Amino acid sequence: MKRTLGTCYYPEHWPEEMWAADARRMADAGLTWVRIGEFAWSRLEPSPGDLQFEWLDRAIDVLGQAGLKIVLGTPTATPPRWLVARHPGMLALDADGRPRGFGSRRHYCFSHEAYREECDRIVQLFAKRYGGNRHVAAWQTDNEYGCHDTTLSYSAAACEAFREWLRERYGSIEALNRAWGNVFWSMEYGSFDDIDLPNLTVTEPNPSHALAFRRFSSDQVASFNRRQTDIIRTHSDAPIGHNFMGRITEFDHFKVGDDLDIATWDSYPLGFLEDRVGADEAHQRAFARQGDPDFQAFHHDLYRSVGKGRWWVMEQQPGPVNWAPYNPAPLPGMMRLWAWEAFAHGAEAVCYFRWRQAPFAQEQMHAGMLRPDNADAPALLEARQVAEELQDTPDVFIARSEIALIFDFDADFAWATQPHGAGLNYFQIVFDTYKALRKLGLSVDIIRAETRDFSSYKLVLAPGLIYMPQDLKSALSEADAHVVLGPRTAARTADMAIPVPLPPDMPGLDVTVSCVESVRPDMPMPLKGGGSFVGYREELEGSADIVLETEAGQPAAMRSGNLTYVGGLCDESASTRLFKNLCAEAGIPTMPLTGGVRCREAGDLRIWTNYGSEPAETPAGRIEAAGVLFEEL
Amino acid sequence: MKRTLGTCYYPEHWPEEMWAADARRMADAGLTWVRIGEFAWSRLEPSPGDLQFEWLDRAIDVLGQAGLKIVLGTPTATPPRWLVARHPGMLALDADGRPRGFGSRRHYCFSHEAYREECDRIVQLFAKRYGGNRHVAAWQTDNEYGCHDTTLSYSAAACEAFREWLRERYGSIEALNRAWGNVFWSMEYGSFDDIDLPNLTVTEPNPSHALAFRRFSSDQVASFNRRQTDIIRTHSDAPIGHNFMGRITEFDHFKVGDDLDIATWDSYPLGFLEDRVGADEAHQRAFARQGDPDFQAFHHDLYRSVGKGRWWVMEQQPGPVNWAPYNPAPLPGMMRLWAWEAFAHGAEAVCYFRWRQAPFAQEQMHAGMLRPDNADAPALLEARQVAEELQDTPDVFIARSEIALIFDFDADFAWATQPHGAGLNYFQIVFDTYKALRKLGLSVDIIRAETRDFSSYKLVLAPGLIYMPQDLKSALSEADAHVVLGPRTAARTADMAIPVPLPPDMPGLDVTVSCVESVRPDMPMPLKGGGSFVGYREELEGSADIVLETEAGQPAAMRSGNLTYVGGLCDESASTRLFKNLCAEAGIPTMPLTGGVRCREAGDLRIWTNYGSEPAETPAGRIEAAGVLFEEL
Amino acid sequence: MKRTLGTCYYPEHWPEEMWAADARRMADAGLTWVRIGEFAWSRLEPSPGDLQFEWLDRAIDVLGQAGLKIVLGTPTATPPRWLVARHPGMLALDADGRPRGFGSRRHYCFSHEAYREECDRIVQLFAKRYGGNRHVAAWQTDNEYGCHDTTLSYSAAACEAFREWLRERYGSIEALNRAWGNVFWSMEYGSFDDIDLPNLTVTEPNPSHALAFRRFSSDQVASFNRRQTDIIRTHSDAPIGHNFMGRITEFDHFKVGDDLDIATWDSYPLGFLEDRVGADEAHQRAFARQGDPDFQAFHHDLYRSVGKGRWWVMEQQPGPVNWAPYNPAPLPGMMRLWAWEAFAHGAEAVCYFRWRQAPFAQEQMHAGMLRPDNADAPALLEARQVAEELQDTPDVFIARSEIALIFDFDADFAWATQPHGAGLNYFQIVFDTYKALRKLGLSVDIIRAETRDFSSYKLVLAPGLIYMPQDLKSALSEADAHVVLGPRTAARTADMAIPVPLPPDMPGLDVTVSCVESVRPDMPMPLKGGGSFVGYREELEGSADIVLETEAGQPAAMRSGNLTYVGGLCDESASTRLFKNLCAEAGIPTMPLTGGVRCREAGDLRIWTNYGSEPAETPAGRIEAAGVLFEEL
Repeated sequence: MKRTLGTCYYPEHWPEEMWAADARRMADAGLTWVRIGEFAWSRLEPSPGDLQFEWLDRAIDVLGQAGLKIVLGTPTATPPRWLVARHPGMLALDADGRPRGFGSRRHYCFSHEAYREECDRIVQLFAKRYGGNRHVAAWQTDNEYGCHDTTLSYSAAACEAFREWLRERYGSIEALNRAWGNVFWSMEYGSFDDIDLPNLTVTEPNPSHALAFRRFSSDQVASFNRRQTDIIRTHSDAPIGHNFMGRITEFDHFKVGDDLDIATWDSYPLGFLEDRVGADEAHQRAFARQGDPDFQAFHHDLYRSVGKGRWWVMEQQPGPVNWAPYNPAPLPGMMRLWAWEAFAHGAEAVCYFRWRQAPFAQEQMHAGMLRPDNADAPALLEARQVAEELQDTPDVFIARSEIALIFDFDADFAWATQPHGAGLNYFQIVFDTYKALRKLGLSVDIIRAETRDFSSYKLVLAPGLIYMPQDLKSALSEADAHVVLGPRTAARTADMAIPVPLPPDMPGLDVTVSCVESVRPDMPMPLKGGGSFVGYREELEGSADIVLETEAGQPAAMRSGNLTYVGGLCDESASTRLFKNLCAEAGIPTMPLTGGVRCREAGDLRIWTNYGSEPAETPAGRIEAAGVLFEEL
Repeated sequence: MKRTLGTCYYPEHWPEEMWAADARRMADAGLTWVRIGEFAWSRLEPSPGDLQFEWLDRAIDVLGQAGLKIVLGTPTATPPRWLVARHPGMLALDADGRPRGFGSRRHYCFSHEAYREECDRIVQLFAKRYGGNRHVAAWQTDNEYGCHDTTLSYSAAACEAFREWLRERYGSIEALNRAWGNVFWSMEYGSFDDIDLPNLTVTEPNPSHALAFRRFSSDQVASFNRRQTDIIRTHSDAPIGHNFMGRITEFDHFKVGDDLDIATWDSYPLGFLEDRVGADEAHQRAFARQGDPDFQAFHHDLYRSVGKGRWWVMEQQPGPVNWAPYNPAPLPGMMRLWAWEAFAHGAEAVCYFRWRQAPFAQEQMHAGMLRPDNADAPALLEARQVAEELQDTPDVFIARSEIALIFDFDADFAWATQPHGAGLNYFQIVFDTYKALRKLGLSVDIIRAETRDFSSYKLVLAPGLIYMPQDLKSALSEADAHVVLGPRTAARTADMAIPVPLPPDMPGLDVTVSCVESVRPDMPMPLKGGGSFVGYREELEGSADIVLETEAGQPAAMRSGNLTYVGGLCDESASTRLFKNLCAEAGIPTMPLTGGVRCREAGDLRIWTNYGSEPAETPAGRIEAAGVLFEEL
Repeated sequence: MKRTLGTCYYPEHWPEEMWAADARRMADAGLTWVRIGEFAWSRLEPSPGDLQFEWLDRAIDVLGQAGLKIVLGTPTATPPRWLVARHPGMLALDADGRPRGFGSRRHYCFSHEAYREECDRIVQLFAKRYGGNRHVAAWQTDNEYGCHDTTLSYSAAACEAFREWLRERYGSIEALNRAWGNVFWSMEYGSFDDIDLPNLTVTEPNPSHALAFRRFSSDQVASFNRRQTDIIRTHSDAPIGHNFMGRITEFDHFKVGDDLDIATWDSYPLGFLEDRVGADEAHQRAFARQGDPDFQAFHHDLYRSVGKGRWWVMEQQPGPVNWAPYNPAPLPGMMRLWAWEAFAHGAEAVCYFRWRQAPFAQEQMHAGMLRPDNADAPALLEARQVAEELQDTPDVFIARSEIALIFDFDADFAWATQPHGAGLNYFQIVFDTYKALRKLGLSVDIIRAETRDFSSYKLVLAPGLIYMPQDLKSALSEADAHVVLGPRTAARTADMAIPVPLPPDMPGLDVTVSCVESVRPDMPMPLKGGGSFVGYREELEGSADIVLETEAGQPAAMRSGNLTYVGGLCDESASTRLFKNLCAEAGIPTMPLTGGVRCREAGDLRIWTNYGSEPAETPAGRIEAAGVLFEEL
């Protein structure tokens, strides 16, 4: 398959007489895809029932005529003002009980049935009208589910739906009371209608309650999305995607992905570094104009998994953005690097967001491929270079890696419900693991926790998987791969209670966590041989072999056969040591990388990227700052 | 009297078939006491009027049969869901006006009369049924009044009760307007019904208004508690206690204590260090697994005073807790040390919280004496050791100390109302004073501001006592003891105005505070001879002797006869110097202690404790890390 | 004109028998002015319609008889409780939607028509009764508009008035949708009645929406004030002022000033340093007892402009205040220094706030000229010294400076709407420019953006002027003065969109800003020759001469003829270099000043002030700490 480029375009923002020239210029730059439509509801239906689709017909036609393929987005992320007036209850409420009003976007609660019906209606209109359009080559549902903290809503609609969800899950209120341990603090309910949302309690709510609400909220996103995909599929054979946003973990992307043909995501490396990576200041300074060297790759590997192999970057940062605390311009070359990195991880397409910088409204300071005055911006030039390079590059094919890393959104919900120590979170733990592997030059598959067949892997990592159903325990235990577990593996039942026998209770591994503790991050707990646990540690008992010990002589990691349990959060030095040894044992070659240099095997190529601001040496030769290097294998 | 140990148990959490074995195991470990019942309302009355006390009868019987004495708690801290549905107005409102809902605990406003009546009813049921039960040897009212910021409620019920309280206090609205200076900013009221609660004002409310609301809120706690003690006493002769929580200062514990037979408190040294001690990072690291070396002792001395000599630790931390920002495991030995320290300060009993770690709900990560899988946890082992040691140790008897330190909750309200400088608070000032005394090896009595007889003391400290009635001034002035006053002594009238003549206006001491200032804490004001004022300083005038001077040559402390006035907040070095000299003069021997080593005289013993993580030398010999040393006097 | 002193007095706070002695003591101290009345509504009208003005008649008489001139304030900043009961909708709502209630001051929404009518009524009563009173020599409207964040109100009254304001400004909803770019995110409105206030949106609102609301809110202050001045002028010829508060920028002081005869402001140097200057910790420590050396001067020059030459300090800090995070006492001499500095900048009068420290209510810890016990406080002594010195000093006359600095409140609204980088704000940018000029020994005029005649200036600075109408562009372009522009000059249209052609699009200057970026403040961008851009930078294109370059070789400042455009935020070193060169070219002598030493030319004098805590040398000789030095020119 040939990799392709694209962009995001808003014909409704520009005079119709500009469309044809824009389309031509896109095609000339080597772009294949153009996404449109996803914020256009107020132009398609300016008042209730007053449908105005003709302009969109013409826009699709003009773009299609220029040889571009359309990704058509449903406009449900931005319901118009009249729709909110008609359904005031559709607004989400925040955890403080305040309505999240009209005036920006994503102003809806996923649980509001009347709004869902309005979405059915508009999606139906889209699907019927364009389902057979030859230019419409793909669909996008809504836009960036969960962005701006919109997954969790504390509205009356959400409360009602939550009660239904609980009724279905637990059957009887007695079962729920039992499962949640509501006898504690006299929290027992007489009926499902007694159950409120877990906000505004005097002190923390029951973690079972909080986790159930997170799971419910996640399911609401999936079912909201499914109603759209069901409707579209009735009318169209084109693949359907959704553009996930980086580090949004409040809903299960895998479950949404189950209803999609392609997973796409929106990659803003500089915005993410400032806002979401969680790095220290020195790291933020070092990579301020390049982004974190592993953050994009992590998401690439995640969405390859969410999309069952098929994935895109739907929005690629084209220059400074408008929404981070600080918004620097990328180092020259980075817009090319990011695209190549995505291809190296298997992206089918990379679309730059957006075509022309909008001079008005919220994103007026968000760069585009063109400046507001229509001049070329750097992103256009770098995209054109990538388009040319794609012509000459053998197609990139992603072999499955020998290493799998499990990422489980449900575990993220559980950690968010109960971090135990300030600042601890599941995403960071998995991401730190990923980073350590990648700095050993390794290519990694990110897989979901529903996986049961690990036969293609030599090494499987499952940090922090707080709930683990019995069949996953068995599958891991019986895998040929070496499996690294802990901390907190299987530490909770499905309902967020501590299981007895105590965790991890893994078949084939005699290890018991007898006590857990969280510790100030400025008190690292040194390990013999180098490295430390930081922030969280468990006391381990059992007859398994001790493979890592604290300097105080307590077991830090224990092993039987193919299972290693790590009883704490490793710093980079400890992780590296552990993974290097396991790779050596498994026959996986490692290659320590430093600074901003990373690599990814992609079929017959190893593609090197340098996120550093200085040139660097690699085993394959010198690589420029912000450079890409192709090594044939 | 023989000192005893105990635990807290929730029979409703466990299958009835486990009770007998649990009881036996408690007794075998040397425990005397078991507290039960305080969160069980939903099991005793699952729906309105459906009383189900039989299980509690059986639990008491099983435990009593095993030789344990019961502390029976009233369940009013956790009203069931149906009760909230019946009285929605019973919920407290926070300062932002948001209801603090059902789903955890303490979800009630102290001023809600209908809820008070529900409490009367359930307490009556308890008292009647168990008032004559031979196993019920003590009572506990409610649980941790004020915990989770629940003293101050901004509900309609609170507003109405506040107006009544003011009407009673001031008689006429003109008197209130005058007392508060409401002419300022045209804040005059036409009637008591005009008075709102002092939240959500544009800028700060009148400090007289804010202080009155704090005093009212404190009184509501006391009267809420008194309704329970009155009912219990009608039916039972067993002593009544309440378990106060550490560093909760929003209500007057002495006033609540007036209606109790025993004061008890809940001691969580590691949680407190992380959350409430207010120490710097280095101190937090040094004592992360031991707790602050003085914080528990301070509360022990405080509650000995609140209980008029009779006091317990009702909940002793048994391992990691779940609620602090970080929750480390205690150093081995600390669970023993904490118990011995409590006995050294006169505790009658120390009860570990809780018997078995609950695998469900909010405190699932709070350790117990047993693990969730029923195995012994470290707390059980250390408690057993203490039980054995108690057999061999002469009883501990607390002589009154020669040094008294006044702690006045009302002063805390006033400082909270008007700290003047960011971060200044009364608790810290008194605690810093206590710490400095204790690091001189001194044993201290904490006494209330209602004290008028100081004849048994050689040295009395009264820092920060912002309001001082005339008869207290006289009593201190005429005391044989040396009295250390300031800063802010008698700086306000009863209604929070500046008195004229200016403060402190102490008989026998010609000192006037002519000006006060708060100063950034990074700008210490050095004193001649060493040490500094930090954060707050007063300009002093008058003819009294200057006993401390700033390096700039201004009087810092002045003295006449038995009265010394200190015009600022001393750092440790300045305090130590001052107290050492005064002790020398008063013939009280001092003994400088460092690190985590502290001692307490207790009858014929001096009991040494080492909060340090390394062994240390004391005048009585070497003491292990987390160790206890008994020195015969 | 002879400069004068005064004070602020509250006869309603004190027994009538004290008034005469107070008045005599004021006159004896050399005071000319006494401001009264501005918080007295509840004493003048204790209940609706019950007018009680006789005491005020007597107070005016007593003060006037003593030879004092009265400034009479309208009491509209503190509506009494009964008035709020009558108009509950008059309360402002904060951005979270919470009412800002009775119990302090400024508890009204500027847009509430019924409250405006109550103000008309009370002001009419004042004006009629005292318009002809010979002692009433000046008026003050309300008190400190905007203080305590009271300019922006999110009430229903504000929403309704905002819709009217928009209707008037845009005429049709289509025009508004177009101007705001509401097509973006389907934010189009069907009618003006659809438009909500820009709070509580899911993510940021449209900046056009937010800016319009800020402009509207500013206009509401001006029209609120105008209703008072119109009424007063019907009955009185005495000049009218309003006491602006330091660094309140949410409304346009120039527009309010258009309706005033005199601008006055309230100067609290120590409170400002702690709370509003935004300096680093070292600077805060160095000047904790003196205030920032430039902050007062900046406001003096600002209000000279607002008052079209006539301005006062209406409230001068007299000792410690009560409202800053820390409230230290001023260094002896500062109360004199501040007064002389004001006179040096052209103040007609300096009034100390307040006469006697009030022992009650919110400001009980705010010093006065007298202590609460009526003894002299330091401010009285220093004021007396100034009064004496004024006798011997030639009158101070302010020549216009050769340097003008534009300050535009509208630009502040725009930056607040869209800072682009965390912490960036317009006030700071202008203030930093002012500081750099002043540290070169320069005297500066602050002028408004409506200025079109620059003929009296040699150098004009216009940093950050984000919107610039065409005639201002022309006027600057054609000025004889050298004009320094940028960054962000003319970066937005009047409706907050990016203009095409791209900014700055200045006639006579071929410079285009092709890209902008905000950068972490810990990543300065060094310039060739010294100094750096910090926080914000623009990429510049065009044929103008490059006059400043980054070390990376990009143009940093460009120039054609009399126009210099600076494409970033200069640190002090870069600013100083730039301004020094431009002054040299323009023939303006500079004189580098360090530490706390500053000077101001005032007629035939150069008045030196030393904010430092140590003596210093100046070209005119040695100056004491907190000292003033008069140099004849």
